[in-house]
Amino acid sequence: MQNRVYAIDIVKKEGQEITLLGWVHARRDHGKLVFIDLRDRSGIAQVVLGSSIKNANDLRLEYVVKVTGEVKKRPPAMANEKTPTGHYEVSAKTLEIMSASEATPIPIDSDGYDVDEEVRMKYRYLDLRRERMQRNLRVRHEVARFIRNYLIEKGFWEVDTPILTKSTPEGARDFLVPSRLQHGKFYALPQSPQQYKQLLMIAGVEKYFQIARCFRDEDPRADRAYGEFTQLDMEMSFVMQEDILVLTEDLFTKLCAAVFPEKKIMQTPWPRLTHKEAKAKYGNDKPDLRKDKSNPNELAFCWVLDFPLFTEQTKEDFFHGSGAAKFAPSHHMFTAPHPDDVPFLDTDPMKVRGLQHDMVLNGFEVGGGSVRIHEAKIQEKIFDLIGFSKEQKEQFSYFLNAFAYGAPPHGGIAPGFDRFIYAALGEKSVREVIPFPASAGGYTSVMTAPSEVERSQLDELGIEIKKQKNKK
Amino acid sequence: MQNRVYAIDIVKKEGQEITLLGWVHARRDHGKLVFIDLRDRSGIAQVVLGSSIKNANDLRLEYVVKVTGEVKKRPPAMANEKTPTGHYEVSAKTLEIMSASEATPIPIDSDGYDVDEEVRMKYRYLDLRRERMQRNLRVRHEVARFIRNYLIEKGFWEVDTPILTKSTPEGARDFLVPSRLQHGKFYALPQSPQQYKQLLMIAGVEKYFQIARCFRDEDPRADRAYGEFTQLDMEMSFVMQEDILVLTEDLFTKLCAAVFPEKKIMQTPWPRLTHKEAKAKYGNDKPDLRKDKSNPNELAFCWVLDFPLFTEQTKEDFFHGSGAAKFAPSHHMFTAPHPDDVPFLDTDPMKVRGLQHDMVLNGFEVGGGSVRIHEAKIQEKIFDLIGFSKEQKEQFSYFLNAFAYGAPPHGGIAPGFDRFIYAALGEKSVREVIPFPASAGGYTSVMTAPSEVERSQLDELGIEIKKQKNKK
Repeated sequence: MQNRVYAIDIVKKEGQEITLLGWVHARRDHGKLVFIDLRDRSGIAQVVLGSSIKNANDLRLEYVVKVTGEVKKRPPAMANEKTPTGHYEVSAKTLEIMSASEATPIPIDSDGYDVDEEVRMKYRYLDLRRERMQRNLRVRHEVARFIRNYLIEKGFWEVDTPILTKSTPEGARDFLVPSRLQHGKFYALPQSPQQYKQLLMIAGVEKYFQIARCFRDEDPRADRAYGEFTQLDMEMSFVMQEDILVLTEDLFTKLCAAVFPEKKIMQTPWPRLTHKEAKAKYGNDKPDLRKDKSNPNELAFCWVLDFPLFTEQTKEDFFHGSGAAKFAPSHHMFTAPHPDDVPFLDTDPMKVRGLQHDMVLNGFEVGGGSVRIHEAKIQEKIFDLIGFSKEQKEQFSYFLNAFAYGAPPHGGIAPGFDRFIYAALGEKSVREVIPFPASAGGYTSVMTAPSEVERSQLDELGIEIKKQKNKK
Repeated sequence: MQNRVYAIDIVKKEGQEITLLGWVHARRDHGKLVFIDLRDRSGIAQVVLGSSIKNANDLRLEYVVKVTGEVKKRPPAMANEKTPTGHYEVSAKTLEIMSASEATPIPIDSDGYDVDEEVRMKYRYLDLRRERMQRNLRVRHEVARFIRNYLIEKGFWEVDTPILTKSTPEGARDFLVPSRLQHGKFYALPQSPQQYKQLLMIAGVEKYFQIARCFRDEDPRADRAYGEFTQLDMEMSFVMQEDILVLTEDLFTKLCAAVFPEKKIMQTPWPRLTHKEAKAKYGNDKPDLRKDKSNPNELAFCWVLDFPLFTEQTKEDFFHGSGAAKFAPSHHMFTAPHPDDVPFLDTDPMKVRGLQHDMVLNGFEVGGGSVRIHEAKIQEKIFDLIGFSKEQKEQFSYFLNAFAYGAPPHGGIAPGFDRFIYAALGEKSVREVIPFPASAGGYTSVMTAPSEVERSQLDELGIEIKKQKNKK
């Protein structure tokens, strides 16, 4: 649009005729003069509409308008010090109403925390207009941009991996997708690209990353949205654990300085604690090392290392051995044992430390990773210890097989993308930083899925809905 | 890894002691001397192993090795002009075998076109080691990088949208995901983020893009992989069709110059044809305007415009009116009618042109888009014309509702990401440019999904597999 100027830029245009495009954010009718705050993605500009502007009186909140007019400096008494454009205003010459608006069902000019979340989700397209949510969208965009530029500069390739795939053993429930071409068979949505990224190392990619969508059918919490989440998935060949820690720490330290300049990292280099120390000193493995937890500008990162490779298996561990075996992976089953502890695999597995690293920010585990096993023999031993059945081993035979053809030593980390932003911003829920999150009940925002489907669709897929038994 | 030098960089290291890490790509045993071509992500370097290197004779193809040694210039007679490092070699001082390899089931030092595709997919992690596939991975990475940098520079925000969502009416079959929390209900995987991107315009994002995964359960072709594909999804507010064309053309023209410097765009500005002209002159709506179709370095873009808004509905059009109505959208049902033709909606709908634009490259439709309807009234009229049932209208009521709250005029385009790379590289199939594509039969590479799942998983989801009727 020619001559279109963003609201925030009127401060540079005094005396010029410009065009503004945006929404009526506020409206004050002073009889002969109508004042509006015109809002666009950049901010807000005041527009003065005189009596010669015919349809000025028709304007209502959230109307979409096109205004042309001259940028003028306000008299000092009329200046508003609270907004960046408060010393200027646009004296309208023409007004075009591009789109009208009914009264919105939720307020847009507040932070929105006091609005019922279900209603916010239903009208997410209005909820996202509020300043706080525009900031969150922008921050999310900027975090992704910074990460990509940093890693690409370091020689990483971004590689995308399938969403329609096979069950991955990350310890949560899979989402299943029935196959139309193979009745009775199912794809699973990936809980993470773990196996693909290891296959990419075997493929010789050497340095891989992806801002990847992951799917877990587990109950939501404040720091975990239902259904899907995003992680920065990274993997490197020919590295030691130290290389992974140094790179990740440098990335996130620089990222915070660039995207959150108002925030301060409490300690660099980040403190490193062993799992034992963390438990002993803080009672948990994701200690909050902030000095003043009420200060929103404190960022306290730390590493937690030397986790035990195994925890005791429980009946709830439905993937690994269905509670029948003694050991479950404390990270995941591809984590390499500490080289000093390999002999204990045969004698006392609970003593084995894993080459796992957890990245903690302000009391949240924002990322986990490890050096991986790259020898089929050790991977097989782990499968046995966690009680894999013959069928489960069979399922992963392709993976063991891949190690037979020159697998480089490799390792990585997968910081949670949503969770990091949530923790860094100190938001109330991870849903505040996801554009269209599912509600706690598993309903999608705006369009309410899941929903019923046509009988014919199920027929094509060869499945049917189980009849409900009467429950009393 | 300290002192690690990429193979390609040995040309800058004459006289220095360096470390190489990589795979044994070729091996020539000359008795006292063993020569290997060591391959890493950057290329190939020759390594000479003398008799003092103990395990030199153990080396086999695809072993992973670490070699330290001195970079030397080869005597002129020994130089190999065919490879970029052919004037140098590394005289090994130490050799470490990091990982052994069995004989690979497929060759890695060829272009791979003559290897059975099913076998290539099964061993995709080996297939990707070949030079051509490494190039394709790198090109894919570079295309994504260029697009992001370009659009971010222009003020676009990257926003991600849900994968677990509701059926979207793009005219293909949906993949369904049964809900565990709501038995009998299903999520659908998005056929495109079409509605979300329009909602983002209503949310005031103004300039949006996403390199987005899309899912369609339709039969694969050479230019269409089964199941999932990737598109560059873009949407802008306050634009005319011309703005979209100019931006897209500038992006792809500069992208080609940067990523495919050896290729030449035949005509700039890109030729524009009306749908009628294209049909009359070339017999189809995606004309191949290359002068010499056997020249791999010709890129002939064009725009096709002025499509009819509707085509005649067929019985196969199972989404729109199940073949019962007269009209089906020729692009999709959100495309705005040409303003001059709006009256024909009531009198002769087949006469209405849509504000649709197709981007064509070398005879492939590599992208389509449109200016969208932003008025609920017109959108409702389209729903009626395509024969939407009351239930279908009900399903989209949230979308019409969104237009009631200040929807800006908007439009966009969605170039196919895989398909553009496939067309630009002149590859034999789109699967050649996707890291882990599904086979034509719908099987995923490496790990063979779809697969059977546990009875207990189906129970949790409240579904069962329909008993097969005996077919004769």
